[in-house]
Parts: sequence; C-alpha cells; structure tokens
Amino acid sequence: MATLGMVEYEDANAEVRAVYDDIMRTRKTDWINNFWKALAHDPATLKRTWESIRQIMAAGALDALTKELIYVAVSATNQCGYCIASHTASARKAGMTDEMFAELMAVVGMANETNRLASGYQVEIDEKFRT
Amino acid sequence: MATLGMVEYEDANAEVRAVYDDIMRTRKTDWINNFWKALAHDPATLKRTWESIRQIMAAGALDALTKELIYVAVSATNQCGYCIASHTASARKAGMTDEMFAELMAVVGMANETNRLASGYQVEIDEKFRT
Amino acid sequence: MATLGMVEYEDANAEVRAVYDDIMRTRKTDWINNFWKALAHDPATLKRTWESIRQIMAAGALDALTKELIYVAVSATNQCGYCIASHTASARKAGMTDEMFAELMAVVGMANETNRLASGYQVEIDEKFRT
Amino acid sequence: MATLGMVEYEDANAEVRAVYDDIMRTRKTDWINNFWKALAHDPATLKRTWESIRQIMAAGALDALTKELIYVAVSATNQCGYCIASHTASARKAGMTDEMFAELMAVVGMANETNRLASGYQVEIDEKFRT
Amino acid sequence: MATLGMVEYEDANAEVRAVYDDIMRTRKTDWINNFWKALAHDPATLKRTWESIRQIMAAGALDALTKELIYVAVSATNQCGYCIASHTASARKAGMTDEMFAELMAVVGMANETNRLASGYQVEIDEKFRT
Amino acid sequence: MATLGMVEYEDANAEVRAVYDDIMRTRKTDWINNFWKALAHDPATLKRTWESIRQIMAAGALDALTKELIYVAVSATNQCGYCIASHTASARKAGMTDEMFAELMAVVGMANETNRLASGYQVEIDEKFRT
Repeated sequence: MATLGMVEYEDANAEVRAVYDDIMRTRKTDWINNFWKALAHDPATLKRTWESIRQIMAAGALDALTKELIYVAVSATNQCGYCIASHTASARKAGMTDEMFAELMAVVGMANETNRLASGYQVEIDEKFRT
Repeated sequence: MATLGMVEYEDANAEVRAVYDDIMRTRKTDWINNFWKALAHDPATLKRTWESIRQIMAAGALDALTKELIYVAVSATNQCGYCIASHTASARKAGMTDEMFAELMAVVGMANETNRLASGYQVEIDEKFRT
Repeated sequence: MATLGMVEYEDANAEVRAVYDDIMRTRKTDWINNFWKALAHDPATLKRTWESIRQIMAAGALDALTKELIYVAVSATNQCGYCIASHTASARKAGMTDEMFAELMAVVGMANETNRLASGYQVEIDEKFRT
Repeated sequence: MATLGMVEYEDANAEVRAVYDDIMRTRKTDWINNFWKALAHDPATLKRTWESIRQIMAAGALDALTKELIYVAVSATNQCGYCIASHTASARKAGMTDEMFAELMAVVGMANETNRLASGYQVEIDEKFRT
Repeated sequence: MATLGMVEYEDANAEVRAVYDDIMRTRKTDWINNFWKALAHDPATLKRTWESIRQIMAAGALDALTKELIYVAVSATNQCGYCIASHTASARKAGMTDEMFAELMAVVGMANETNRLASGYQVEIDEKFRT
Repeated sequence: MATLGMVEYEDANAEVRAVYDDIMRTRKTDWINNFWKALAHDPATLKRTWESIRQIMAAGALDALTKELIYVAVSATNQCGYCIASHTASARKAGMTDEMFAELMAVVGMANETNRLASGYQVEIDEKFRT
C-alpha cells in the first residue's frame, strides 16, 4: 500500500496517545484530524511536529488568528488541498469572518501575481530596501 | 537587452506619471521603487496592478499590517527575492516589530513543512473539514 | 473533453507498444500505469520521456532506491498527487521500509521549512560556500 | 567548491564538443551559454538535455516563438533567475516584441493569481470540464 | 463550513449578476463556471478579477489562443487542478488541437526540468544576457 | 533595514552561544554559517530549528549522505539559492562525488518534468497505487 493508513487512538501506543491527549487539550476539542493520525506512524516526527506547532501557533507578538491567516496564505500559495481545508477551518474557529477570508484571498492572489511580475521583469532590489 | 530598464519620472508619459503621483500620495513617500518603474513599460499593467494593490491593501476587515504580513508570507514561500525585500520594508513601515517578524517567519517555515508532510503522507481531508 | 483518456495496449500503435513492452520488461511487471497511457497520445514524448527515465533511474553512482527516494522528495515538494502515489509505490518496490519513508518525509518537511527561513531572512551565501 | 565551474570548448572532450557544435549550428550562433558549460560536467545529461530541447523547441504545431513564450512563462512562475534571463533573450531573438513581452507577463501574473484563488476557495472542477 | 459554496445566478445580487452577464456575453456561453460562483462571495474581488481577466486575455500583440496556452503552462507548473481543467477547456475552445496540447506539455515539462538544472548547478547569468 | 544582520559569536547571548557550540561540536567544524547567525535574532526559532535538524539529519534508516542528497533535491526544486549552496557543500562533506551530484541533478530535473506532465495530462491515480 502506498499510504500507511491512520493510527486511531485505540490502536496508538502510549507515546502517541500522550501527543493526541495534548492536542485535544490544547485545542479544546475531542477528536484528532487525519494529519496527526498519519504522522503517528512516526512517533518522533509526530511529537516534534506537534510541539513545534504548539509553540509557534500560540499567541505572542502576533495573535492566534493572524497566525492562522498566515498559515492559510502559505497553504494556498503551495496549493496544498489538505492544509487549505484544515487551516481554513482553524482560522474560522479562531475568529476569521467571511470578510476576512475574502480579503485574505485577495492579498494572497495579488502577492502571487506581483511575485511573478517582479521576477519576470527581472527587477533589481532598490538600494533603499538593502540599507 | 533582456530587461527593459526603469522608467524614471522625468521620462514618463502623463499616464505613467499619474500612477506614480498616486503611489507617492497614497504611500506618503517621495520616491518610486523599481517594481513600478519596470512595470511602467506597460502602462496598462502598471495602472491595473497599482489600482488592484491600492484597493486590496487598504485596511478593511484586516488591517494594513496584517495584509503586509500575509504578503511577506507568500513572497517567502515563493522565494521571490525582490518581493521579500520590498514587502518586509513595507511591513516594518506599517508597524512590524522584530518580534513580529520572527514569529511570522516561524509560522511560514512551519506551514511549508507541514504542507509537504500532508501531501507526502497522502492525508485525506477529514469529513469535518468538508461539511 | 478536457483530458484525452488512456491509450490501452490493445488500442496502441506499434511505436507505443514497443515502449509499453520495454517498460514492462525493464520493470519486471505486467501492467502499464496511467501516466504512460496518458502520454501515449504523444508517442514522441512517450518515447523520449521513457528513455530518459530508464537511463536516469538505473543504478549508477547512486543506487536505484536512493533515486526513488529523491523522486518522492521532489514530488512531495511540488505537491503532485499522482507522482507521490506512483513513486512512493516504486520506492517501496525498490526496498523502502516504513522507517525509511518516515525519515524521508522528515527531511523533506524540514528542508521545505529552512528553505523559507533562509529566503525570508534574506541570508547571504557564505564566502566559504562560494569558493 | 560547491559549484563545478564551466567547461570551456577548449577544455571539452570530443563528446561535449560535438554537443557544443550542434548547439551553435542549430542556434546559428558562435558561443555557448553557461547553462550548457555547467551541464558539460555530466556529458550524458548534457547530450540528453540538448537533444530533448532541440526536438521539443523546434517549430511544429506550435511555432518557435510561442514555445519560447511558454518557456518564459514557466521560468517566471518558478522564479528561476537564470532561465528568465536566458529564455527572455531567446524569445526576443525569435521575434518577441516589447508589446508581446508585456502581454506575456500580464497573463503569467494573472494566472498565478487565479491559481491561488481557485485553490484557496477550494473550487470543485465543473462537470462540464470533466466530460 | 470550510468552503463557502457557490453563488448561483438566481441567488446573486445585482452587482454579481452584472458580472455574470458580462462573462456569458464576452465568452458567448450560457453558463458560469464554479470559479466565478465561488468568488462571488466577495463581489469586489469578483469584479476586479473578471475585469482584469477580460482585459488581459483579449487578443492583442498575442492572440487569444497563445494566451490560453500560457495560462495552461502556468497552471500545470503550479499543479492547480481546477485551473488546468478549466483553462485546457478554454484553450481547446480557442482552437488548441491535440498536437498543440502535446507540444505545450512537452515544453512545460522540459522548462520545469531545466529550471532546476540551472538552479541546482548554480549557473551564473551570462554577461550577454545582462546587457 | 530590511534584514537584521548576522549575530556573531562574540555578540551572542548565552542561549545562542550554547546552540552555536552544539552546531560546531556536532559538525566538527569551527565556524557558523550565515543561516544560523540570521536565525539567532530569534533564539527560540534558532534552538528549535537546530534541534530538529540535528535529530532529523542524523544517520538512521537512511544514512547521512542520503539525507543530504534529499535536502539538495528539495532546495533545487524550490530554487532556494542559499540552501542549494549550503547543502551541496554539506553533501560533498558527507561524501557526495561529482558523479553522485550529476545523477542527483538528473533525477531532480526529470522528476520536476514528469510532475508537470502528470498534472497537465490530468492523470488519475491508478487503483493499484491506492490499495
């Protein structure tokens, strides 16, 4: 089989269950989404990835909603279907309204356009942006 | 010559100058960065791109700083050197602190990582994210 | 119709059949996967692509398994669903274990993360890497 | 050294020289650009890549200029600096005017924008496009 | 819900209907594809995107078919499933034959290959391409 | 200033120095490359990234050289100049010969080509790859 299947809670070992428990506690939810169930085949990566995510996505100088918007922006740019679906859901849970989503998409679209105009026209970086 | 060079204000026609003037007025600045000077070879694209940017980047449901952060996130994901330099400068002007920049980069990096884990593990979208 | 459909062996002309036969002989298998059946609408591209693949993927200074791992790494980075599925299967056939797959994904994820950190922080290439 | 340097004609072996000669003859030019001089460290890849390029880029159902425009479109999308520079030069040699270049860039920019809008909005493929 | 659903003509407000009408008139068709029905949740983006597309995709120095080919080239490079399906259909409507499609794909594939060879070999831009 | 500059050892705080020391000890070298000096502006990201890299890149089911080859493959695919330069150097240090590098590039190039052929031809995943 090409894929490895999902590791359900009842089939998980203690190390994996500890991560699942922490995900549900941190996110105040009672289920685990497929991303983590797939990663659970590699408990070391599961643990490292979750702990990184928990640390990075916590509110800091940027609030949790802003971070979720950035996550969606990257995922849409990379055309990752799973990530767009899951992080759009997370962003909504964190407070993203329809208006915010629409503006987010408009910025993501425009940035992807001007990125290619800048490259295609071989624009050199202005001195003022270097110093 | 592969590239077309920059159209300076003094060499620009009236249509291009009108856009340059609007850029400087809107951004409260007295210079035009190379991106626009390159696009000015195609006044229709210059005008359309600037008017789209002005409309999209104005504060709305998302504030101007959040929009600049999203712009940097896309540009870093696409590895566009010019766009990273220019929009990091814009984001700082809009209020991005060093702490915000650091958190922005951490989210962008992590999202790019998990995008590939989701794809590589061939994770299917959860039903809860579809409905 | 947007797509062209698959060219099955019984419907293929002599030129296409010769490629199909060589694919099955080289890969010690009795079926042709959809990628080749789609390309067969353009026999010149089918032949050139297969001959390039056969030459490139043969064991050389790098063994066949290492080459398949690299193929999966590129496909996951590009988020190509078909390619991830087909080359993950090829890599398993060439000897990739679950442990190897997990480590492969971890490296791919991390490389995609640090690629953006390097770009986003506008890191200059060290002199030692240039000389 | 990280890079391998360029293989100049006078230092090239007979196999590499034969490719260089064919490049100059086909392109009606008297010099070899750096891309080929770098690839020449691997004569098998040099030969295979050149022969593929020569076959693919020759006028067929699409003329040579259209093919160069497509090459620039891909290179700008991928943000490949070398490829943008070299294929913009090739496209100009094949007849691309400033007006054509401006329209090419406009299409490339817009396509990159709508690609992300389509993904970000999770738009499903219309039945009419499937059948 | 992660996605917003499609805005059908009968449920659309006057502003959205005006855009839908213009799309059908311009394209000489009697239906609206899902891309626009999704964007219609944000009438400002719907209008701006459609007007940009209409302006950019109209025949100019490049004819309409060439522009559609370029659009498919970008979409295939970005691996955008929706965009590949919809613009392949548009290109066929504009006159793309099976032979043209095959040559388009061959160029797109080769450009994506040489883009990475140029980057991976760290090839420097030739002086002749700069001046 | 757009970029933040490099944090040199003598200017680093104790937390950063501890990471620098561990990098030099693990890599058996006496210098720190620019990537880490840039990240050091954000000690939390510096520490997390280094510890992830150290864990991921250590020999396991895949040896250290194979992991470096995969890192270069991703970096070339993403067109990240810094990452290509630094990880090509790392791969050479880990034992990559010129022949291996040439084969690596050939596989990376070909995978990037066939990724787009698979997407552009809208190839469906074979049942055998799903089960």
